[in-house]
Formats: sequence, C-alpha cells, structure tokens
Amino acid sequence: MSLHLDANGQFRHLLDLEHLPVDGLDRLLRRAQAFADGAQAAQALAGVAVCTLFFEPSTRTRLSFQLAAQRLGAQILNFDASTSSATKGETDMDTLRTIQAMGVRGFVVRHKQDGAVAALAAVANPGVAVVNAGDGRSHHPTQGLLDMLTLRQAHGDDFSTLKVVMVGDVKHSRVARSDLHALRALGCGEIRVCGPAALLPDDDTLHGCVVTDDFDAALDGVDAMMMLRLQRERMTEGLVDSIEDYHRDYGLTSLRVRRAAVNAIVMHPGPMNRGVEISDEVADGAQSRILQQVANGVAVRMAVLESLLSAPE
Amino acid sequence: MSLHLDANGQFRHLLDLEHLPVDGLDRLLRRAQAFADGAQAAQALAGVAVCTLFFEPSTRTRLSFQLAAQRLGAQILNFDASTSSATKGETDMDTLRTIQAMGVRGFVVRHKQDGAVAALAAVANPGVAVVNAGDGRSHHPTQGLLDMLTLRQAHGDDFSTLKVVMVGDVKHSRVARSDLHALRALGCGEIRVCGPAALLPDDDTLHGCVVTDDFDAALDGVDAMMMLRLQRERMTEGLVDSIEDYHRDYGLTSLRVRRAAVNAIVMHPGPMNRGVEISDEVADGAQSRILQQVANGVAVRMAVLESLLSAPE
Amino acid sequence: MSLHLDANGQFRHLLDLEHLPVDGLDRLLRRAQAFADGAQAAQALAGVAVCTLFFEPSTRTRLSFQLAAQRLGAQILNFDASTSSATKGETDMDTLRTIQAMGVRGFVVRHKQDGAVAALAAVANPGVAVVNAGDGRSHHPTQGLLDMLTLRQAHGDDFSTLKVVMVGDVKHSRVARSDLHALRALGCGEIRVCGPAALLPDDDTLHGCVVTDDFDAALDGVDAMMMLRLQRERMTEGLVDSIEDYHRDYGLTSLRVRRAAVNAIVMHPGPMNRGVEISDEVADGAQSRILQQVANGVAVRMAVLESLLSAPE
Repeated sequence: MSLHLDANGQFRHLLDLEHLPVDGLDRLLRRAQAFADGAQAAQALAGVAVCTLFFEPSTRTRLSFQLAAQRLGAQILNFDASTSSATKGETDMDTLRTIQAMGVRGFVVRHKQDGAVAALAAVANPGVAVVNAGDGRSHHPTQGLLDMLTLRQAHGDDFSTLKVVMVGDVKHSRVARSDLHALRALGCGEIRVCGPAALLPDDDTLHGCVVTDDFDAALDGVDAMMMLRLQRERMTEGLVDSIEDYHRDYGLTSLRVRRAAVNAIVMHPGPMNRGVEISDEVADGAQSRILQQVANGVAVRMAVLESLLSAPE
Repeated sequence: MSLHLDANGQFRHLLDLEHLPVDGLDRLLRRAQAFADGAQAAQALAGVAVCTLFFEPSTRTRLSFQLAAQRLGAQILNFDASTSSATKGETDMDTLRTIQAMGVRGFVVRHKQDGAVAALAAVANPGVAVVNAGDGRSHHPTQGLLDMLTLRQAHGDDFSTLKVVMVGDVKHSRVARSDLHALRALGCGEIRVCGPAALLPDDDTLHGCVVTDDFDAALDGVDAMMMLRLQRERMTEGLVDSIEDYHRDYGLTSLRVRRAAVNAIVMHPGPMNRGVEISDEVADGAQSRILQQVANGVAVRMAVLESLLSAPE
Repeated sequence: MSLHLDANGQFRHLLDLEHLPVDGLDRLLRRAQAFADGAQAAQALAGVAVCTLFFEPSTRTRLSFQLAAQRLGAQILNFDASTSSATKGETDMDTLRTIQAMGVRGFVVRHKQDGAVAALAAVANPGVAVVNAGDGRSHHPTQGLLDMLTLRQAHGDDFSTLKVVMVGDVKHSRVARSDLHALRALGCGEIRVCGPAALLPDDDTLHGCVVTDDFDAALDGVDAMMMLRLQRERMTEGLVDSIEDYHRDYGLTSLRVRRAAVNAIVMHPGPMNRGVEISDEVADGAQSRILQQVANGVAVRMAVLESLLSAPE
C-alpha cells in the first residue's frame, strides 16, 4: 500500500500527478466532464466531513473546494492554520491527527513547504483521504487536472498533435510542475517553455520540453498558451528588472496571440496581473478560457473528492 | 434591461432603494412581514450558492445575510476580501467574475467605495444577482427596508401622517440615505433631520426634510426617533468636539423621549455607542425597537434573496 | 429559575460543572457514550441555529463544537469577536443580544475573563442556551466532561477506587478546575495534584487533593495521568526557569509512566508541547488516550447541545 493507492489499487490520496496512473487521470477527467455537463451527486458524501487545512492562505482555492464538497452533500469545515494562534506551536502532524480524531474524513491541505502535504498524508488513518491543494513549488494536482480538462474541451482527448506553450515564472510555480507532469502523461505532442532564464527551473523539470526565451518564436502555431502569474516579489528579488520590461518581453497581447493557431486558447491559473503577464484584451478576449478554467476547477474537485471519499458500491 | 430590473420587469439586483419601484418595495416588505410572522421557505433556494463578498469587514451584517440564506436552504460561502492576500492584487471585478465562474448565483457585497457595488453588478452574468450590503456613504438598502418594516409594525402601512426624526451623523451614513429614499417613497408625512451642521449632508440629500440643530424641538410629537451611530473618528477629524458635548446635545435620554408622541418608537441600526448617541435607559426601554430591527433584518434579507434568486414558478 | 436549570428543573445553560447535579452529569456522559458508539441524531437540531461566539480565539474547540452541531443537523455560524472590528466597541452583551435577535438559539462562548460567559448567559432570552467553551481560568465544562468520559471508557463508571494525578500548570488552567469539580462529583478515590509551587492554585481549589511537587512519587500506582499544557509565557513571567528544567522535573517520559499502574492511561487536553510536558514516546504510546479525548470531545458536545436545544418530546 502506497500513499497514492490502497491495497485494492484504489486511489487513496491525491498528492501529485506524477504518481497517478494515466487511466486514473483519465477516469477523473471523464467524471469531471460529467460534472461540468451538469451531473448531480448531491448525496454522494452525505454525512462525510471534509476540512480545508491551509498552512498558507488561499481564499480562492479554498472556496472552489468548498463549493465542490457542498455539491456532493459533504459537511465542510475550514481550519486556517496560517496564523500561529491556530496551531499554538503544535506540530502540523498533531494538528491533522487532532482534526482526524474529531471524525473528519477528507483533508484539503495547502502548505508553503515542498513535501509537507505528503508528510501529512503519511499520518492519515485508513479511510481518511488527503488532497494536495498546493505545496511549495512542487505540486498543485487539481490545478493540473482542471487545465487538462480545459485543453480537452478545446482540442479533444488526443493530445498527440497538441502544441502547448507555458510562459513565465515556471521556476517558482507548482502549477507549472503539475501541468508538465500531466501533459507528458497524456502524451502532449510538443511542450514549449518560455521565460527569462532567471525564472526557468532545472533541466530535470524541463526534460522533453523545448525551452526558449524568445516569446514570439515560442508562440508560433501553438494550440494553447498557458500563462503564469508573475509574483511581485520577483522584482524585489532582482529576478525581473521591471514590470514594464516583463510585459514587453513576456506579456501576452492580441498582437502576439495572432502568432498562435487560429483556434488556440489562452489559459491562466489566476489571480491575474492585468497589464503584466496578460493584457486586458487577451484576458477578456474570445480565445480566453480563464473563467472556464475556474468553472472546471469545481468540477475536477468534485470528481476528486467523490473518488476519494464516497463509499464503494 | 437595467441593472435594477430584467427584461420582464422583474427585480434583478438590489443596489439601492432609489430605483426600486414603490410596489416592489411594498411587495418585499409584505413578504418580509410573512417571514417575521414565521412563514417557512426552507427549500426556496435549495442548491443555490450565495457568497458574501465583503471588501470592508462587517461581521454583523454578514451573519444576518448568512442566517437568511440558510433558512432558505441556500449554500452560503464567505469571501473576506478586506485582506489583501484574499485578492492578491486582482481587480474587484475579476474577483467577482472568478467566484461567479465557480457557480455562485447570489452575491452579497459590501464595499468602502460609493458606487462600487453597482459597478460589480454590471459584470454579473444573467441569472446572477447582487445585493448591496452597504457601499461607501451611499446605500444600504436592506437596512432601509428593515427600518421601514419596523415602522410599519409600530404605526401601520400608511405613513402619510407619520412624523419621523433622524438624528446624528447623517452626512457619513449610508443607512440615513437609504432610509430617506424609502421614507419618501412610502409617502412619510414629515421627515425631520437633526444634527450638528458639520454632520449634515448637502441640500440635495435633504430635500423635503425639515432640518434643525435643535434636538429638543426636533423631537416634539414625533412617532419615531431614528438614531445614528457616532463613529469615534468624527472626533479625531474635528467634526465633533467631544463625546460629552455630543451626548449633551444629541444623545437620546428618557427625558428627551418624553417630547415625542406617547407611542413613539426608538430605532438604531447598531452597533450602539451607549452613553453617546443613546442612553442605556432608552436603548433598553419599552419604546426601543432596536432588537426588533435586528430580527426584521433577517426577515427582510430572506425576502430579498428569495425574490432575486428563487426560480420563477 | 437559576442560570443552570429552568423552572422544570431542566438543564438550561452549561456554564460550569460545579452547578450541574451529579445525575445530570451522568446522563450527559451516558448520552455522549452513545454518540461515541455511533448513535445518530441527524435531525435533532434541524432548523436550529447555533453560533460560536469567541472573544478569545480557539480554532480547535470551535471546530469540535461545529462538527457536533452539524451532526445534529443544526445550522452553525461563527462570530469571531476577538477582533475589535467585529464588535466595534459595543458591549459583549449587546453583541449577544443582537445575534440572539437574529434567531440564533444556541451560543458557544469563549472569553478571556472569568465569569464573562455566565454574565452573558444572564441576558439570554428564554429558550436560548449558552455553553461555556472556556472562560478565563475558571471553567471549561465540556473539556471536563470529555475527560470523565475518557476515564470511564478506560476504568469503568465507578471512580471510588480510582487514583488520578493532574500535573503541571494547575494554577492557570480552566481545564484543571473543571476536571477537579467533575472528579469530586463522581467520587474519585484519590486526586493527586503535582507541579512546581509557582504553578499551583490556592488551597480552596485544591481541597481534598493530595498535593506534591515530587512528580515521581505522585505517579506511584495511579490509574490516570492528566498532563496540562505549559504555556510558553510562564517562562517570560518567571514562573518556570526553563523548558529543560520543566521537562526534567515534570515532563512525562516512558520511564516515569512505568511508576503508574500497568493499565494506567495518559491524557492531555492539547495542543501538546512535545518534549516539554510530554515526550513523543508517551504522547504516541499505547497508554495515550489523547486522540480518544479529542474524539470524545465531539460526542460530549453533541450530548450537551442536544440536551440544551432539542425540543422536549
């Protein structure tokens, strides 16, 4: 029995997309599509308590999981562990063990540190599931899933001829890492990664990708542009000279979008810095799938929570 | 189609009381009275998600809306947008669009800036409703409605012979503005406004009102005393000399209440500064309707949410 | 009619364990055991609104009450009164009166000041119940109840031959005071209290207890070790020299546990300071009932809320 699968080969926790078998990934995406199409499962998690346990604040992701849990009939609780008074110096593991002892069966965990969510999953009791809602720079598996769902809706399930470009601060992005794992797993034809050298990760993370710092070239003929948020702290850290330079070199504008395929889509995990990594015109344009990504987020999280927590029939 | 009414002339958002037709106002008040009398509608909003979106904190108003939504069977979520980490620099409109994309159908919005709630309503999708829970100094329509309901309960539906005095910091009060709109719309016989000159608004806001700084005279024979909260910052801004002076000149005491009609009622939107705008004796006295206002708040909010969000039959 | 019992001798508020008759205490513990064994009462509080009203933050206790309320079908709301913006200078009593006027029927209140929760209960309307979730150093009755339930599960309902030791900062602990009341009420055979003199309370609190500062002697043959959390501020206050000294003298280690009876249990109200009042080995050892205490907390709170708030049949 691993952290990822139980003794029956069933999906146990969702910690990353690296360890999720391709057929498991595909099954989740198909169920998520059903929810996106309006499938109901209002009693699937009746009587099941799910707790968001965020060691790093994120209102938006918390809300998406909360809506997903409520639509499955779960009881949802929030534990904001990002303030010290919440945990009063106890270990993260004792915090999880304590809430688990109260009868909570599902944990949606976000943490600043890489690997911290998997470490917490290791102390979960049998029958208790942990979903990684983002840890450090490592993983954000539900974001990866919702991005794949969005790509499928635009371009179909066969990714073998798909060309995707991922743009910006890949180095510090757990979204990017989860997307890269998923794109490879689903056999994406070509993955391009583009950004200033200071924001690109090590070669290992980028294996199999076409890497460039020339944004215009990178856009040529792509089917999807996956833009990443530029955190303001990259400026104070000296990794980026100025907002203006960044926008000039890596900001997605209407002019640039024309280099992509005609039916190419624009994606962004939010929250957006308008005028920095993306222009208003593109963010709100016909090719933008940014709000559809948000909608898919709820559908994906419903599929994940149902899969992990509903009683086997 | 306006922001206030949809193509069928149905009530679409509740942004202010200025644009609500009198018969719409009357219908809401009658439905609220039914809820106050114990009418149930526990399934009216089953499966509908409502989100409080507060760019300015207000625990009390949020709680009242939350109870109202729960009693209608809605799913209720809270998004506290008053901390910067919640919105991470995205625009208010992107915040609303994002939560809307998650499937939320009702927004209860509070904002520091005048007009900000109406601006947010302008980006709401068809089928999505926005309720203004207070913006700047402009509007607080559900407070206006609950005050009107309280007046009707005491003095009947015909306001033509009603004399009301509103006392205190009218200038900075959205409650006062919403009350003034509603009192005029319902044909209130006489509206008196009383307070120190520095706390009175422009003539336009006061049109049709009898204005005075003599509190004792203003109380003479009135049927209702609507006291306003004095924010402590009025002192630091130099608009009021001292708490003691303010209480002496504009504090409602038992002695002063005797100047009003014998069956006059005392109102206050809360939270009260006891010993400042109102004495303990009056706040807790037989003529006080302050807690009844709070109770009416839930009934009014149920009527508003039901009206905006329940499926047409 | 007292604050504790209504005109029919029914349990009205739960403010402390001093005023709860022994048969009432026993009835609650038996009902809690039924909930711990899986009894369901998913509709017991359907349509009843319960509000947590915390003037001092405590995420863990709030969560436990929240889960208990949800399992009884109640609507649960949270009012965090520990920030000044929440109450805006109004009195605590006005805060309770206001939420009560909204139709909330149950209040779970925590407060820094001794006696503050009882003072709030005094303004509750008939039909409204207050549960003390901890006030000052005085009372924490649901913690006392869950500790008694845990002792019963290990050693049976007859406490007459039971030997218990309570260790640590008894002086500042409301948990200790509630446990002492409950142990006496249930006829505990021997209550030992152990800690440095600076952390022991007055004689009145300790009446009937065997008091010592010799931890090894105090452990001899006991059936239960009730460890208390050492707040870090005891160091800055000069009441304790150092963490190391405290651990050496009053930290529970495996070596020390052997002095107790073979079937003795280890208890701690959490959150634990591992390596201070308790070693990892003991906290996670076979004799630890710390997580069982947490589980019992939900069962006890279900019994209390049901008893106070469900309609008489």
